[in-house]
Amino acid sequence: MDVSRRVLFKGSAAVVLAGALSRVGLAADDPLPSWNEGPAKSALLDFVHATTDPQSAKFVPQPERVATFDQDGTLWVEHPLYTQVVYCLQRVPAVVKARPELAEVEPFRTVLSGDPAAIAKLPADELAKVLAAALSGMSIDRFEAEVQAWLENARDPRWKRPYTQLTYAPMIEVLNFMRSRGFRTYIVTGGGQDFVRVYADKTYGIPPEQIVGTAGGTRYGYDGSGRPFLTKDPKLLLNDDNAGKPEGIHLMIGRRPYAAFGNSVGDRQMLEYTTAVAGERLGMLVLHDDGEREYAYGPAGGLPDTKVGTFPPSLFAEAKSQRWVVISMKNDWKRILL
Amino acid sequence: MDVSRRVLFKGSAAVVLAGALSRVGLAADDPLPSWNEGPAKSALLDFVHATTDPQSAKFVPQPERVATFDQDGTLWVEHPLYTQVVYCLQRVPAVVKARPELAEVEPFRTVLSGDPAAIAKLPADELAKVLAAALSGMSIDRFEAEVQAWLENARDPRWKRPYTQLTYAPMIEVLNFMRSRGFRTYIVTGGGQDFVRVYADKTYGIPPEQIVGTAGGTRYGYDGSGRPFLTKDPKLLLNDDNAGKPEGIHLMIGRRPYAAFGNSVGDRQMLEYTTAVAGERLGMLVLHDDGEREYAYGPAGGLPDTKVGTFPPSLFAEAKSQRWVVISMKNDWKRILL
Repeated sequence: MDVSRRVLFKGSAAVVLAGALSRVGLAADDPLPSWNEGPAKSALLDFVHATTDPQSAKFVPQPERVATFDQDGTLWVEHPLYTQVVYCLQRVPAVVKARPELAEVEPFRTVLSGDPAAIAKLPADELAKVLAAALSGMSIDRFEAEVQAWLENARDPRWKRPYTQLTYAPMIEVLNFMRSRGFRTYIVTGGGQDFVRVYADKTYGIPPEQIVGTAGGTRYGYDGSGRPFLTKDPKLLLNDDNAGKPEGIHLMIGRRPYAAFGNSVGDRQMLEYTTAVAGERLGMLVLHDDGEREYAYGPAGGLPDTKVGTFPPSLFAEAKSQRWVVISMKNDWKRILL
Repeated sequence: MDVSRRVLFKGSAAVVLAGALSRVGLAADDPLPSWNEGPAKSALLDFVHATTDPQSAKFVPQPERVATFDQDGTLWVEHPLYTQVVYCLQRVPAVVKARPELAEVEPFRTVLSGDPAAIAKLPADELAKVLAAALSGMSIDRFEAEVQAWLENARDPRWKRPYTQLTYAPMIEVLNFMRSRGFRTYIVTGGGQDFVRVYADKTYGIPPEQIVGTAGGTRYGYDGSGRPFLTKDPKLLLNDDNAGKPEGIHLMIGRRPYAAFGNSVGDRQMLEYTTAVAGERLGMLVLHDDGEREYAYGPAGGLPDTKVGTFPPSLFAEAKSQRWVVISMKNDWKRILL
């Protein structure tokens, strides 16, 4: 009896242990541990499997594996204001210090007043003047140093963290997973190309040459000692939003992506362009429906309306008809911030 | 005596054999077999060694290894006319067939006349109209198909070969060698970005996303069945020549190259920008001084003047003061065409 019980016990222990190991094994093998099981996670895993398994009929050769990701609201938090807009507003005192004549000129006077209600009411073309002043007129090197210094000190008011720590853990997993399977991951953002390049390599593992963003021209010139440098020009070359996204993808990559990820109406054309051809293609849209853990806005699905990251019912309808996968932050993501 | 002679003989044979093997070994290990020994070849080998040997004080991490190459006159033949200009001139009958109203309009009438002297006399702004008509107004897909079909049939009049076979063997070796040591090789050309992308992957092993060229905008739209496509727009976004080369490099790559290769005054700023910083940097200029095997033009070094690929004495002087290496096709290259 004793002996048999001991044998039985050992056997049970072995079974329990094997089960535990197998679960640990599964977790360790799961490239998307922050995702709940469900249609969004399955669509991702199925797509990557179909395009990268050499036995698959839908196999895509490695050099053609391009995946594009919107940034604001897709890879990191965009509410209540795009981080780059926060940067530009906070740069205004320095801009006015360098050009004191702007202190009494709108919209700079309003921004300097610090009155949030008045600032929020600035029309888009006035805000554009603030952006132009903060994002052009200096050398590339100086601009990068200014953004870098700001990122180190600025904190998001809700999470009290640097903005570069407000990235979505589930999306960082997608970036890493796709890269591990031979995809080149690109950011395709309405934000400034030079702005995003400052932190994207450290924050997302995405190098400067894989950032497609709204881009102004530069001017080549020489400093006092004859050394050449580039100055950021206010002239707009590429407005990388809406139809500008596929146009920017063609300009900068010259290949149609196999997968595209967005979260708002500005990403519609990018997803259309990506999925409008034969073969395995993936379009995904992040829906911000978790007001508790992040923010809830749409206005699709009865969520509150927003100007920052609009997801209208028409986009919801197109997602359905085009078989783009809508990711519910509330239901599909186990955790949100990294 | 016999024995000692045999031993001596065997010894000598072994020495001879070892010497022969060592030379074979050296030849097989030589990444630049089409280059004669000399300062240009040494500069290349030294630069790549210094930047890629982990023990070197000038080691450059792999992601930062960017090398940029002008195309016309640096990677392939540019005389008597840039290949893209030949393409545009030969496209004129098809352009006029699609738009018959152009037949009686200059400069199309002159081009249709087929009179080489009259065509050669067309001023630059008239030629620009021909380029715009041949390079814009159609979908990206159609443009690529047109260029592809032309490349398959067109032959260079001197060598009776497709233009894509007029690449320089020594430069193809440089591309392959640098890539084998972790460099990403980019083309940075005054030619059309979309034009070069059609053949660069097959011809040079350089993929579409590593082509920086003169670029027009595109327009996103839909065909009759609602499928999105991009139309090539005549609006110029980037004139990728002269100062436009460093500007294009910043726009498309976002990193300063470690090495830059050119052959004419249009490459001056690219080489300046590349070599104007501390650390190991390499600037090289191909001088076309071999009228027998290719062409001879300058006008530096007493070579005949040219409008296509000008290499003026001022560039020669700057090369000397900046320590850029001038490659003599005549003396540095064992063979020229691949």
